[in-house]
Amino acid sequence: MTTINEVARHAGVTPATVSNVLRSRGRVGAETRQRVLDAIDALGYRPHLAARALAEGRAPTLALMVSSIANPFYPEFALAVERAARASGHFVIICNTNEDPLMGRAYLDQIAGTLSEGVLVMNANLDFADLHLTEARGAPVVLCMWEKPNDPPGLPSVAVDFALAGRLAASHLIELGHRRIGAIVGSKVSGIHTPRYEGFVAAMKAAHLTVHAEHVRHAPDTVQGGYAAAHELLSANPEITALFATNDLPALGAIHAAADLGLAVPGDLSVTGITDIQLARESRPALTTVAVPTAEAAKLAVTLLRELIATGTRPSDMAPVLYETSPPRLVVRASTAPPRSARRPSRSR
Amino acid sequence: MTTINEVARHAGVTPATVSNVLRSRGRVGAETRQRVLDAIDALGYRPHLAARALAEGRAPTLALMVSSIANPFYPEFALAVERAARASGHFVIICNTNEDPLMGRAYLDQIAGTLSEGVLVMNANLDFADLHLTEARGAPVVLCMWEKPNDPPGLPSVAVDFALAGRLAASHLIELGHRRIGAIVGSKVSGIHTPRYEGFVAAMKAAHLTVHAEHVRHAPDTVQGGYAAAHELLSANPEITALFATNDLPALGAIHAAADLGLAVPGDLSVTGITDIQLARESRPALTTVAVPTAEAAKLAVTLLRELIATGTRPSDMAPVLYETSPPRLVVRASTAPPRSARRPSRSR
Repeated sequence: MTTINEVARHAGVTPATVSNVLRSRGRVGAETRQRVLDAIDALGYRPHLAARALAEGRAPTLALMVSSIANPFYPEFALAVERAARASGHFVIICNTNEDPLMGRAYLDQIAGTLSEGVLVMNANLDFADLHLTEARGAPVVLCMWEKPNDPPGLPSVAVDFALAGRLAASHLIELGHRRIGAIVGSKVSGIHTPRYEGFVAAMKAAHLTVHAEHVRHAPDTVQGGYAAAHELLSANPEITALFATNDLPALGAIHAAADLGLAVPGDLSVTGITDIQLARESRPALTTVAVPTAEAAKLAVTLLRELIATGTRPSDMAPVLYETSPPRLVVRASTAPPRSARRPSRSR
Repeated sequence: MTTINEVARHAGVTPATVSNVLRSRGRVGAETRQRVLDAIDALGYRPHLAARALAEGRAPTLALMVSSIANPFYPEFALAVERAARASGHFVIICNTNEDPLMGRAYLDQIAGTLSEGVLVMNANLDFADLHLTEARGAPVVLCMWEKPNDPPGLPSVAVDFALAGRLAASHLIELGHRRIGAIVGSKVSGIHTPRYEGFVAAMKAAHLTVHAEHVRHAPDTVQGGYAAAHELLSANPEITALFATNDLPALGAIHAAADLGLAVPGDLSVTGITDIQLARESRPALTTVAVPTAEAAKLAVTLLRELIATGTRPSDMAPVLYETSPPRLVVRASTAPPRSARRPSRSR
């Protein structure tokens, strides 16, 4: 590996001058500066990336921390972030924490402020103390999809009204005439899907409908998780005519479970999701869901992060900024329909 | 941003000593070394990551270049790489080139040898000249799934016998009794799916079956690409009883197209894919496909890259190493069955 001393010798300057060129500091003449950059290129020297990018006017890098790259929502969000970042000449490197806070901490420690000028956090299950430490080191942090616009976190964030998403999906089922609606919540009790479930409960209450505890299941936020929960829920409660799922993946799993139980969707069972991932459009029956403004959230998050990078880390006495996206919106497709009356004996009571 | 001079002042040493500690070079006493590391921590200094990782014994980073993070195979492969890398304490950062060689070049220039000790390339559509340049700079490069074990590329690589994968899928359809088999090739003519298609052609020839040019379509390697190609192919050629697709995504699209044309899968049409992504197992009907040893390829690629990092860049007069995975294997699920005889008038000829 080439050292800064070798670069200095090659360019006929002191290591301090090389450092000044790399950091755009001190007084270095244009001709000397070029000589140093030429020496760096000739020797293939790889200095501190951010410093070199600064010196050469090259694109700096943003880190995107995601919790589970295997969940198709995250690649979609990553693409949206890349589009937004590229518009301002930034590169995005994706760090997958696999829902492990220790992995997340290690990534933050490796990358934040070294390779990346700033960090975008997408549900990466990170310790807030670690994120504050990253901020303190000079790399701003933005939370990309905070679930509760009215309850801001202690970090700059972009919020999506996920309670509204839940209300919209539930109201759609209620307006179709469904009364016995089950819910599959794709996170732990009081996990990140709680606001979506609260929106569902609010819509049910507003329609004077009861949410039966035995009609609610918490499940992993995956197709398999939704499949298992729906299979069990529908087998145990044949009176259910519709399922509200807090995310598209468990909703798709619920549709598979219905098929395996001999229930037609939407004839025998309506199913709704939330997010509108690509698979929601591509599955058959295509999934009725509540579309979350993913591209807008990505754009806002990149904009906010760039503002924080430009102005330096926020003063600690300043409240963190929160940008809210436009509201989620219902997208009706082929997985919902009015309940088939008298389909099951228990429906007649 | 803290400078190396500030670290030196804080630790009461010269900047050269700080540099020596960071690079594990020169003679630095244990006590002085600790003082420098303490100063680095106290000031939040972020030096050249690889050097610091070296000095502190922390985990170095591998870069994984992928062509399209939106294609669900790539996140699955990234997870497999992460698992393999973590076993040796390496972190993986994912760089999505979006099938753009210029993006790929920029990532290589930003990351290879700076943040990452080595680069894994997964179909990232990169210019070989750029990859050789990265090698020349001291960051080894490994191609993760070369398609032609008998025709090695000019870079270290892990190869998968994709022609065999094509043969296995086609032979399965032929053994079921299909004679008029269409093919959907998920890449350009002479693109990366060519060996898979050649395997299909070889199996057809071995069974004395004709591959009709009008039964073959090249399409984008996506669900939509497969949908459009299959819709057109099946509409124009009702005599087709089975579709061979070179990848799972277009195969899933073909199943959707069949549904929209009123054809039952597998009753009216059998469909096969290649790869065995998660969606192949989770879709209904579950997809018959040829499973590619993804986890094994990821493990071999990480092993090979670590060997290259450990031994330094290969001498230019040495032929690049090629590791071959175990062979792909057929996984029969619900999307294939014997042809329904006399289903369509044209079948009787």
